[in-house]
Amino acid sequence: MPPTRIAILGSTGSIGQSTLDIIRRFPERFRVVALAAGCNDARLSEQVREFHPALASLAHPQAFERLQAAFPDGATALQAGEGGAAAVAAYPDADLVVSAFVGAAGLVPTLAALQAGKTVALANKETLVMAGALMTRTAAAGGARLIPIDSEHSAIFQCLAGQRRADVRRLYLTASGGPFRTADRATLANVSVEQALAHPVWRMGPKVTIDSATLMNKGFEAIEARWLFDISPEQIKILIHPQCRVHSMVEFVDGAILAQVGAPDMRGPIAYALAYPERLDLGFLALPERDFSGWEFASPDPSLFPCADLAFEALADGPGSPAALNAANEVAVAAFLNGRLPFLGIAEVNRGVLRRARAEGLGDADSLGAVLAIDRAARQWAREIAGGFTG
Amino acid sequence: MPPTRIAILGSTGSIGQSTLDIIRRFPERFRVVALAAGCNDARLSEQVREFHPALASLAHPQAFERLQAAFPDGATALQAGEGGAAAVAAYPDADLVVSAFVGAAGLVPTLAALQAGKTVALANKETLVMAGALMTRTAAAGGARLIPIDSEHSAIFQCLAGQRRADVRRLYLTASGGPFRTADRATLANVSVEQALAHPVWRMGPKVTIDSATLMNKGFEAIEARWLFDISPEQIKILIHPQCRVHSMVEFVDGAILAQVGAPDMRGPIAYALAYPERLDLGFLALPERDFSGWEFASPDPSLFPCADLAFEALADGPGSPAALNAANEVAVAAFLNGRLPFLGIAEVNRGVLRRARAEGLGDADSLGAVLAIDRAARQWAREIAGGFTG
Repeated sequence: MPPTRIAILGSTGSIGQSTLDIIRRFPERFRVVALAAGCNDARLSEQVREFHPALASLAHPQAFERLQAAFPDGATALQAGEGGAAAVAAYPDADLVVSAFVGAAGLVPTLAALQAGKTVALANKETLVMAGALMTRTAAAGGARLIPIDSEHSAIFQCLAGQRRADVRRLYLTASGGPFRTADRATLANVSVEQALAHPVWRMGPKVTIDSATLMNKGFEAIEARWLFDISPEQIKILIHPQCRVHSMVEFVDGAILAQVGAPDMRGPIAYALAYPERLDLGFLALPERDFSGWEFASPDPSLFPCADLAFEALADGPGSPAALNAANEVAVAAFLNGRLPFLGIAEVNRGVLRRARAEGLGDADSLGAVLAIDRAARQWAREIAGGFTG
Repeated sequence: MPPTRIAILGSTGSIGQSTLDIIRRFPERFRVVALAAGCNDARLSEQVREFHPALASLAHPQAFERLQAAFPDGATALQAGEGGAAAVAAYPDADLVVSAFVGAAGLVPTLAALQAGKTVALANKETLVMAGALMTRTAAAGGARLIPIDSEHSAIFQCLAGQRRADVRRLYLTASGGPFRTADRATLANVSVEQALAHPVWRMGPKVTIDSATLMNKGFEAIEARWLFDISPEQIKILIHPQCRVHSMVEFVDGAILAQVGAPDMRGPIAYALAYPERLDLGFLALPERDFSGWEFASPDPSLFPCADLAFEALADGPGSPAALNAANEVAVAAFLNGRLPFLGIAEVNRGVLRRARAEGLGDADSLGAVLAIDRAARQWAREIAGGFTG
């Protein structure tokens, strides 16, 4: 079997590096043909030296200049800016594109990959949160396929293998519950940034860690699941599972539930997405027996963690509302991290933006341009609402 | 789609009645064409009146005479004895045969169904415990298919759907642990029949309930799994899971585990076997949220529950040894239920028979006749060993 030729969007980030770790272990199965990163020319240079891609791209102009200086011989073609990322995304020789840029920067190249009919292993959350309808429609039109890398969606994807979609009764998205799972309202009102950044299980960037503490992250994952699995929001249920060993579950119409279980290590879902429908022998990954213990599950308290419900409200409101919610939340979390918004204010900003979107309307979300216009408007509203907080 | 035409071996027992309960709910999907029972002519008569099979069979001569008297018109053909059961098993118009006789009586008709190339939904445990190699070889030769009805094996079968067998690292067979899960040796030495019959979760017949208390049942299930899934015994691990909600699990080479979860209701696995690869909408079956709670898993203590290990020893010993172990255990459990053997004596009898089989040899197990000869010899040994206990 010829190796799968892989392009990576965001190769210097956490998911990108883990992807290369898997590829490094299976040199016969995979070949890196194109890499795109944001501004980390030092790490991208190392990756180019090790994997010899045909194309490498850096978004940041000065970092790109340093990259050019490091590789004067032209064995790897170099490109800069958004165009470079899109070229990596649609690189003709690539069979599979790993979409692992962080944030809205992932939208344009991911759309380009789907338009080019690529199989996209998706780690970028904004792709489906901001533009789920557009992305899935584009994938269907171009014969492209989306395979999730997020641990929860990979779990559901694995549970659905060999099953008929019509037989699905419900998806259970599991959530760690974050650092404030057992907190009361008074505690939440006085949460510090340091406390919010101390996630009990997963080590992630600050934005995602805060989203995990508010459960906004789980709400966004519900939006992604709605699009990835073409399922109605009423069929998605969030369950707090502090042990983080059951990564999600699918309930079928006969009452049977399939759960995917494993160590919390992103290399598992990454490897599954790269090799699907096969599995790679990851001898280093196994759930130790001590982790088969005391698995608890509970519904979140919507009065303390309203952000998850806001995601379902956004889905019900209309195609542009999830993008507005995503924008509001980015502004709100940044304000919290900068000490300008209390923890509970994050949900208030998000709620306020959804309310204003309902009052003023958002227009359609049929193109990336329209989605990005919604994003801009919602950010402005969010800044106004956040500015009204006196702390 | 035309209805699936079903023959049931053991229609008046617990699994048989639950199968008819499912069929009753989906009259467009299933049609009963043949029924076989042992001696309960009253219940079989009711079933004939309700489902109008083309053929009905009773093993017991006098019960058969009463059945004949009840249906003089010939709309349902009636047959008696072992020949009747075999005729039901190989009934030409049946697409699927439910094998739900209890005990060794299930062997001959199940083999007949496999020889006739039927899809066999298997509930009879002795089929694979006593004659796993013969049955699976026969199935392969005749293009017949075995679908498990046992909750643990159905769970594994469901977890394997859409997965490659080569990607399986391990099967986790879960066990309730029975009523003596937390008992010490002194307690086990003095267990009464009443205590042993008080299973904490599943309501089953006395023989299976005792087997559950000794973990012999789980050992037999390991033997069945070895044949059903063509997997080496070293890849099968037993896990005590007192909550009985996770019915079994499959670990893959990438470290991912799929678990099948659900209410402990045999209609789930029965419906899955009948409709495979589809699922039936069983609105009445759902795991209530309170059951998503405190799932524990632990390895059994082999010093207190040696019967599970004896099953693996029997698999290692050779093709006839599991049949000898099964026979020994039947004799030992009957002696325990009759008050002639202490609880811990069951394992001693089983161990003694395996030891004697090693010393004296068992001959081959290539035919049902050979397997039944092993069964007879082992019973004799077991009676001798059990008789040596003074209580």
